[in-house]
Amino acid sequence: MPVKLTAPQASSLLPVRGVKLGFSEAHIRKPNRKDVLVMTLAEGSNVAGVFTLNQFCAAPVILCKDFLAQKSGIRALLVNTGCANAGTGEDGLSRARQTCDALGNLLNLQANQILPFSTGVILESLPTDRLIAGLPAAIENLKEDNWLNAAEAIMTTDIVAKGTSRSIMLDGQNITITGISKGSGMIHPNMATMLGYIATDANLSQSALESITHHAVNKSFNCITVDGDTSTNDSLILMATNQAGNTVISESSENFIALRDALTEVAIELAQAIVRDGEGATKFMTISVEGGRDETECRKVAYAIAHSPLVKTAFFASDPNLGRLLAAIGYAGVEQLDVNMLKLYLGDVLVAENGGRASAYLEEQGSAVMKESEILVRVDLARGKANCTVWTCDFSYDYVKINADYRS
Amino acid sequence: MPVKLTAPQASSLLPVRGVKLGFSEAHIRKPNRKDVLVMTLAEGSNVAGVFTLNQFCAAPVILCKDFLAQKSGIRALLVNTGCANAGTGEDGLSRARQTCDALGNLLNLQANQILPFSTGVILESLPTDRLIAGLPAAIENLKEDNWLNAAEAIMTTDIVAKGTSRSIMLDGQNITITGISKGSGMIHPNMATMLGYIATDANLSQSALESITHHAVNKSFNCITVDGDTSTNDSLILMATNQAGNTVISESSENFIALRDALTEVAIELAQAIVRDGEGATKFMTISVEGGRDETECRKVAYAIAHSPLVKTAFFASDPNLGRLLAAIGYAGVEQLDVNMLKLYLGDVLVAENGGRASAYLEEQGSAVMKESEILVRVDLARGKANCTVWTCDFSYDYVKINADYRS
Repeated sequence: MPVKLTAPQASSLLPVRGVKLGFSEAHIRKPNRKDVLVMTLAEGSNVAGVFTLNQFCAAPVILCKDFLAQKSGIRALLVNTGCANAGTGEDGLSRARQTCDALGNLLNLQANQILPFSTGVILESLPTDRLIAGLPAAIENLKEDNWLNAAEAIMTTDIVAKGTSRSIMLDGQNITITGISKGSGMIHPNMATMLGYIATDANLSQSALESITHHAVNKSFNCITVDGDTSTNDSLILMATNQAGNTVISESSENFIALRDALTEVAIELAQAIVRDGEGATKFMTISVEGGRDETECRKVAYAIAHSPLVKTAFFASDPNLGRLLAAIGYAGVEQLDVNMLKLYLGDVLVAENGGRASAYLEEQGSAVMKESEILVRVDLARGKANCTVWTCDFSYDYVKINADYRS
Repeated sequence: MPVKLTAPQASSLLPVRGVKLGFSEAHIRKPNRKDVLVMTLAEGSNVAGVFTLNQFCAAPVILCKDFLAQKSGIRALLVNTGCANAGTGEDGLSRARQTCDALGNLLNLQANQILPFSTGVILESLPTDRLIAGLPAAIENLKEDNWLNAAEAIMTTDIVAKGTSRSIMLDGQNITITGISKGSGMIHPNMATMLGYIATDANLSQSALESITHHAVNKSFNCITVDGDTSTNDSLILMATNQAGNTVISESSENFIALRDALTEVAIELAQAIVRDGEGATKFMTISVEGGRDETECRKVAYAIAHSPLVKTAFFASDPNLGRLLAAIGYAGVEQLDVNMLKLYLGDVLVAENGGRASAYLEEQGSAVMKESEILVRVDLARGKANCTVWTCDFSYDYVKINADYRS
């Protein structure tokens, strides 16, 4: 079950002026579930995106990057679940284009004004006929207060729909930010198997939007991992409809930081929600590494811990088998690490120092922390001032069950 | 259950002239199990070793490296299970030294003529009293035909004892090679959580022994992975008692290659046995990558596949969800990989080419291969002549169960 995560109320996901959302049940893979989402953006909206670094990236990812580079004036997004349209070669590209053509015809847009997204099984052909047949119903129910339905329409193995909103006042205007995300396995930075869509009605320049997108991703989706697998389809999109009436925000505006931080906060909440709903997750772990010479070595240590199946199964068992944490630190690949200098904490409890168990550490202290559903692991490398934080979950029977059964 | 692996017959593990083995039940962690092994070597034996690269390496690993560097004339090995004596700082070093002192006193050797090894739980103090109290019994049953008992004495979560022998004729003399190994979780190259001991009575130079050791390890223990965790205690030792009566073999001798290959064959069999008995393993997978520009990029691809929890759970389920293999290839980090050129085979079946599913591939072909207990995954990167092979196992409920329960 998701760790301290419940689906948002429909009313808590605030409409964003200029964004409409519609869904349908197109039977892409399974019947009787929302599996197609159409999102439309008012004319004059700005859009920025970050995509998977997997070299086997999916056909829709290739098209998204291409269309964004063309600066063609993105006016709609089309998302399907049930089929990733990845590992599908030229035919996959042609099928993704067909779906953009079809939606363009219905909305009176060019195909390159539509960003396509797919998530689901890899190496299978996208059923374009069923997807296209599902478009009219999605267009028919396009409306501004459909964010919860949209969050549900993009779920795959997710248990809980993920979305959040913020309101801030900038320049005397009320600014709304609403985002949704999906993903619970094949989750790894750069990026997770995830789709994320964050919209704001704030008025800001394209360059400010791109700058905020990269900042927000680095503080959120690039800090999570469930199983270390980087998907073929990861995509995060930030959209600004520019309808809020504030003076346009650029990177040098005094309101830039406030807007950036609010958007980043939404991105962090959506990213953490993915981990809380990680496949089979029973615990949410924050791995915080400080005292490094640079951020890179801090990330190495944090990810060595976050990816270790032995650490993750020990957390699942609530067993303070903390030597496994030391082993992971030791093989993380930090050059000239002095293991006698570093300190390891579980929650507030000092567990290891001087290359071994801390003299005051008692097993029952570790056991007490391990019983919590949210656990902080803190490592002080004691050799510099850099730090980083990564969020992950434990590794349970259910992870294996979900992934052994996923296609069936 | 181990994949096509059974314990060797006692009679199939051939005595090696100059090597005696004795064991005892010292109750290091649990009662009523063999947990101490003493191995003695005839005077004039040569010894070489390869050890974990984990920076949190265990106290006995530090001593082993030190004693080998002193060229002190190694005459005995002392192994305990139940406690890894890792993450134990200065106190751990002192305890490891105490055990060498105690065995030295009993065998009339200097402490630095004894190599110590420990395996078991990390971050716990070595119970030297009980270990030392167990030494006389182990010395009492020292004998040449005790290899199977020795293999059993070093087991931890292993289900099956692991050992093998070879006989070859060199220079008119009958040469014997016998080896044992242990380890089934925390298995990753450089090296696995494993202990391995291979002895031969061949007469060869120290430098030839060291050269063979590195060759054999690179072809065997450095090509296996169960869960990607590199342990704090991994050690592989090659010993030559020089008692066979052959002319001494150096790197330039005509018999060098024959001896090297026979020792490497033993190392490969012992390494594969560790994977076959991998924690929770139900399938043995060979990941073979060819057509790379260099071996490094082949290893990246092979390990990306071998470490992917999504790939490993799909193999556990016998589900040809082969898109996960493409995803792993895509995030392996090979620069400028052209996904349209590579080919993916499952057994003999061509699964993917031209960036997608091979046109002749049928799901039932994949399903048929997936039902086997030994499966070959072959990737042709089609951009060079380098290749590499890695062995791994699948990821099952039992892996989680074993590792969630290990300390209890």
